[in-house]
Amino acid sequence: MANPLKIAIAGLGNVGAGTVKLLAENADLLTRRCGRPLVVTAVSARDRKRERGIDLSRAAWFDDPVRLAAEADADVIVEVIGGSDGVAKSVVEVAIGRKRDVVTANKALLALHGAALARTADQAGVSLAFEAAVAGGIPIVKALREGLAGNRITRVYGILNGTCNYILSTMRKSKREFGDVLAEAQKLGYAEADPSFDIDGIDTAHKLAILTSLAFGCEVNYAGVHVEGIRHISPLDIEYAAELGYRIKLLGSAKLTDHGVEQRVHPCMVPMDVPIAHVEGVLNAVVATGNFVQDSVFEGRGAGAGPTASSVVSDLIDIAVGRRMPAFGIPAKDLAKLAVSPMERHSGEYYVRLTVQDRPGVIADVAAALRDERISMAAMIQRGKSPDNIVPVVLMTHATEEAAMTRALARIGRFEAVVQPPRMIRIETL
Amino acid sequence: MANPLKIAIAGLGNVGAGTVKLLAENADLLTRRCGRPLVVTAVSARDRKRERGIDLSRAAWFDDPVRLAAEADADVIVEVIGGSDGVAKSVVEVAIGRKRDVVTANKALLALHGAALARTADQAGVSLAFEAAVAGGIPIVKALREGLAGNRITRVYGILNGTCNYILSTMRKSKREFGDVLAEAQKLGYAEADPSFDIDGIDTAHKLAILTSLAFGCEVNYAGVHVEGIRHISPLDIEYAAELGYRIKLLGSAKLTDHGVEQRVHPCMVPMDVPIAHVEGVLNAVVATGNFVQDSVFEGRGAGAGPTASSVVSDLIDIAVGRRMPAFGIPAKDLAKLAVSPMERHSGEYYVRLTVQDRPGVIADVAAALRDERISMAAMIQRGKSPDNIVPVVLMTHATEEAAMTRALARIGRFEAVVQPPRMIRIETL
Repeated sequence: MANPLKIAIAGLGNVGAGTVKLLAENADLLTRRCGRPLVVTAVSARDRKRERGIDLSRAAWFDDPVRLAAEADADVIVEVIGGSDGVAKSVVEVAIGRKRDVVTANKALLALHGAALARTADQAGVSLAFEAAVAGGIPIVKALREGLAGNRITRVYGILNGTCNYILSTMRKSKREFGDVLAEAQKLGYAEADPSFDIDGIDTAHKLAILTSLAFGCEVNYAGVHVEGIRHISPLDIEYAAELGYRIKLLGSAKLTDHGVEQRVHPCMVPMDVPIAHVEGVLNAVVATGNFVQDSVFEGRGAGAGPTASSVVSDLIDIAVGRRMPAFGIPAKDLAKLAVSPMERHSGEYYVRLTVQDRPGVIADVAAALRDERISMAAMIQRGKSPDNIVPVVLMTHATEEAAMTRALARIGRFEAVVQPPRMIRIETL
Repeated sequence: MANPLKIAIAGLGNVGAGTVKLLAENADLLTRRCGRPLVVTAVSARDRKRERGIDLSRAAWFDDPVRLAAEADADVIVEVIGGSDGVAKSVVEVAIGRKRDVVTANKALLALHGAALARTADQAGVSLAFEAAVAGGIPIVKALREGLAGNRITRVYGILNGTCNYILSTMRKSKREFGDVLAEAQKLGYAEADPSFDIDGIDTAHKLAILTSLAFGCEVNYAGVHVEGIRHISPLDIEYAAELGYRIKLLGSAKLTDHGVEQRVHPCMVPMDVPIAHVEGVLNAVVATGNFVQDSVFEGRGAGAGPTASSVVSDLIDIAVGRRMPAFGIPAKDLAKLAVSPMERHSGEYYVRLTVQDRPGVIADVAAALRDERISMAAMIQRGKSPDNIVPVVLMTHATEEAAMTRALARIGRFEAVVQPPRMIRIETL
């Protein structure tokens, strides 16, 4: 048997402990697949005494993860601490500096510093692997970097945050309000105590920025992502969506346009007949469109100890058998710096829900505001009466530019008969 | 720029011509991803004069594909002729014999000779790559061999034949008979003039046998696959399925049981709430279940020049950048020879449709036949009257062994009041 691959793990939370567990439980299988054992030689975490249900007796303990990165008897450093800066970043930088391969699950780190880290990894001649950073157990990084690498990828999009998808799915099924379902998700452990990272779209944006780089061969540009979350989605919108043949999903979506790369994270109306509409609960899914393969869909668990550990270990296997490649598929120095296609230039269809006083002339005013921006209406629903004479009016538009839509909505919002700010959800024609 | 990867292509049908087209159209991208150009140096096909819409002026022409395999100025031989034996097999064997890497899309060849070919490839130290052999453009071979390689895979199943899925989807939507829809599919080019390879499940079985080997690290065993096709599916069954919350799909399914590996190809009732139920038309999908990742779903185009070429080229990229591995993920000599779990030992739920004379005692007799085999009924539907007093009766059972079900159906089929052979469709509890 060849010499073992020695692995040092920085961070023993869910993912770190899950990785140790996988390496132990599937040890025979991994040895068979790699031709050599995968052995955890060192670990680091904050609390040495915490019971994690894993055997660490043969691993050296480091209180300081950065020291582990520098000094552990290891070929590979696994960084599963998390956070875009601070300790996690130091661990990765020090490991690369010592010419050790790095496996990380840290999407925030890669979203903010991916291009720079990839350059230093290339210079050091080591791997910087991150299958676990996007969509948990779904092997989408490998798919984009290798499986679909023959294609010019024109578009990549997906449901990248299980918390949001769980909340939206549950709102639909139970017809309950956002806040109510969020509170429940927090109790069940599907949402953090401070949920803003998830529900405001930031986590999705981190992952999207990484996918964009892999898909288009450009530098990660998190700052170029337009980000909106799901706080303003109401059961009423979900119901209208169903009636119109759509589901509401928080998508991260990137494509190449004439103005550069467009990266958007926001709630979308997704037609019922596309696969992603049926991805429910905590599941994630990614769709990549290539000029030869057409649409390729990848679906699975986007989080959790087991699925994330599965992805960490797939990177370790690549390293163990000597399959090496640049972090984002091509050498970091060759990654393009693509212009950002601004959101105002986005073109698409729109759903708008207005809350109006039910009196003559309101619809005419709204229609005129749209017409003045050359926005063409595709459908309108006004129905029912209410005791207070306040009714919802729903509009669907044909494709138009975001800038025109923004101006029209600002004007409509100022109408006296429009008693709440207009609600707008973009429709995705996938 | 490093030296080009020289590619010889045996076969210029849809896939071969598609591969040449992809290599030309995406040439700059491929050079960037591989760090070297991918160049077609030689081709072989039956008809030199046929217009294929591709530029072959710089490729040497071989009338004899076996000579191309032996003599072309090439690093890699791409075999896209097809067929389990004869010329295609010779091309692959000769190429390996000359220590050239091989890329093939030939599922029949691999299903019947995969283990032996993998051994000779290992001995010669060359790659035998076949991403295009299963599920067209879906990178499922790489996913099983690398992306999910950290997992003990316990089950793999999928919709692996676009022709069958198109026919079943169209039958459902149009409520038309099998023969009628098949004839239409033939006109549209979705089914061959001789359709038996597809509709009798043989093509699915070839692909399943390959997936089984990749998933479980065992030798390909096509002879161990239980195969049934879709000829006997009627619109009535599809309608009942919908009423009961199912869709009918032709699945290839493999799992590890206490008796060995169970490989089955037959029509299945699939619950509406699993992703695969929504895979319609010519699309393919594969689901792999791993002990850490849980279910991973891969969906896309399972055939066609573009998607298949995408997979051929992903193998070429691996070879161009030096990513090598054994054909089925582990050295061929280490592939297990697993026992075949016989179909009689299969355990599952069943849908049965009987056509009976509507008279007292019939249901009692049927119920007794099931009881005597200890088969527990989960549901029964009998409805309506017919002028000739012949009515359908539909049963759903709880989980039972195939052997018991076979005996019960044989007995029921002999009842005088049962006027047509019973129709049985297995229910998949995915």
